[in-house]
Amino acid sequence: MDISELGEFGFIDHITRREKIKNSTTTAGIGDDAAVLNFTDKESLVSTDLMVEGIDFDLTYHPLKHLGYKCVVVGASDICAMNGKPSQILISLALSARFTVEMVDEFYEGVNIAALEHGIDVIGGDTSASVTGFMISITTIGSAKKEDITYRHGASINDLICVSGDLGSAYIGLKLLEREKKILTGNNVAKPEFGDYSYLLQRALKPMLRSDVIELFAENKIKPTSMIDISDGLASEILHICKKSDVGAKIYIDKLPIYIKCYEAGNELGIDPIISSMNGGGDYEMLFTTSLAEYEKIKGIEGISVIGHICSKDEGAALVTKEGNELTIIAQGHQGNKEQE
Amino acid sequence: MDISELGEFGFIDHITRREKIKNSTTTAGIGDDAAVLNFTDKESLVSTDLMVEGIDFDLTYHPLKHLGYKCVVVGASDICAMNGKPSQILISLALSARFTVEMVDEFYEGVNIAALEHGIDVIGGDTSASVTGFMISITTIGSAKKEDITYRHGASINDLICVSGDLGSAYIGLKLLEREKKILTGNNVAKPEFGDYSYLLQRALKPMLRSDVIELFAENKIKPTSMIDISDGLASEILHICKKSDVGAKIYIDKLPIYIKCYEAGNELGIDPIISSMNGGGDYEMLFTTSLAEYEKIKGIEGISVIGHICSKDEGAALVTKEGNELTIIAQGHQGNKEQE
Repeated sequence: MDISELGEFGFIDHITRREKIKNSTTTAGIGDDAAVLNFTDKESLVSTDLMVEGIDFDLTYHPLKHLGYKCVVVGASDICAMNGKPSQILISLALSARFTVEMVDEFYEGVNIAALEHGIDVIGGDTSASVTGFMISITTIGSAKKEDITYRHGASINDLICVSGDLGSAYIGLKLLEREKKILTGNNVAKPEFGDYSYLLQRALKPMLRSDVIELFAENKIKPTSMIDISDGLASEILHICKKSDVGAKIYIDKLPIYIKCYEAGNELGIDPIISSMNGGGDYEMLFTTSLAEYEKIKGIEGISVIGHICSKDEGAALVTKEGNELTIIAQGHQGNKEQE
Repeated sequence: MDISELGEFGFIDHITRREKIKNSTTTAGIGDDAAVLNFTDKESLVSTDLMVEGIDFDLTYHPLKHLGYKCVVVGASDICAMNGKPSQILISLALSARFTVEMVDEFYEGVNIAALEHGIDVIGGDTSASVTGFMISITTIGSAKKEDITYRHGASINDLICVSGDLGSAYIGLKLLEREKKILTGNNVAKPEFGDYSYLLQRALKPMLRSDVIELFAENKIKPTSMIDISDGLASEILHICKKSDVGAKIYIDKLPIYIKCYEAGNELGIDPIISSMNGGGDYEMLFTTSLAEYEKIKGIEGISVIGHICSKDEGAALVTKEGNELTIIAQGHQGNKEQE
């Protein structure tokens, strides 16, 4: 169905028809000039992200449902990176003439699955035509107690550098998809088969929100000293923490959590999984630092890797090889996977 | 200067270098995964708008500085329409390769002027490349006491329908600019001369935020029963109020506040100023209803016009001519000026 058949207001009604409010902080959602929220007992957190067709995603291999899911994850990941709980999202779409109501429905199916999984209310948005392509703007809101909020600027010398999950898979998954693009194009296959590399492709198309990591912090009474989510690759993220905290960092190559299939696929593609971890981006894992005193607690949490430690600013930021050689870390954000912070 | 010369992070630093926090509700602005806000004694209000080049604005006659100013007004107007005070804004930009650092600076100059005028903190945003054109996503945050928030759904039978300022000028201004487009193109004139129609052109390029109306409500202890800002034209806005409030409306043609120059320019362009008021949009005036008991107060406020009254749903929504004939009001949103809610 052509979107113009519904008219703009009909289209908004169509998109929002299934919205049920899940959070007590949402006083009023979609349907007025602004949504009304109540954060009278906590600090609120707000972040915004932009996703542009042809730059941040490619619809020839990115199913719209996965893309909708991913948009929620990309937005909510910023709230988790503040040690907060995401609770509301606003999604605006600019759509070129080739987009049908069914395509937008497929996108929102993914949005709604992710929102339901994470207890997030879709409280607003805007729609516009676009001259070419599809563009998505995501604003995510969440909250945290003032004393729990974790900034980028709290890392101190000797703090442990930790990361959740594994790194570099999303970028290698993206490169696999780009290789397969010609096969998929013209075939009109909305959902590519994931096969043996299914995990890698899934990391690229439908990353998981690491809100579980934030919950583990609460359960284990851990307050990271600094935190950031890995959208642009480990290199640029650790440099953000170093810059904001006025410190240096040593990261050990042999501690990097790399999924085994990355070596196999990386070999086929001619991509070093270490480079992919450092500069690939799109993993949406949590990079954080904790005081040394937390080591026993951190060690006991499955899926968290200690990959290095914070040092003085003078020592710089370096990747340390097995042989003990140091390679200076340089930000390569947006060279690879162009997902935004 | 090419944006790539600064790099993405350098570019963000460049854009945000002048930001000073003005509001006590802004705990932390730009520089982390999310901004941190404190609305512990009020309800917070959130709204988002999308502005797309070639759809919502045309850079051949829209100076970037005016556009930056307008983006803040468009965003903040939604917060005013809830009877709230705007306090924070997040602006994301997708920029095609033709955009230079100087062009973005010019845009932000306008953003900063409007933000300073209205005490709004620019607390975040995102940047991305775009395949073609310029796209702007604006998220605006504000607050109000719970008892002051004005929704679209509160209008009752016999309520007065009121509007601030004048209507239809923005659309006629836009049509004048479109007529002059050929003259301006190639001439490389960034700021068109406003001449005799300066007010009309200014309404199209750099509308004013009617936060003064909200302040007048507070001073005069008026609580509107319903309110909406006029982004799409009076017709579609009054229909939103009627739909949400389950009522009808009578609006009197001879009460419509139309600036005198609209008749002159409308005559030249072949546009009826009444049609422009009803369906043109882009005026960003406040449309609101109040109980009859407030009439004396409303009458005393300069620049507020009483244009009609709320009636029962069965009576429908109609424009009443001088002769007493009724014309059914039909939404024409997005047929004319394509600004979004």
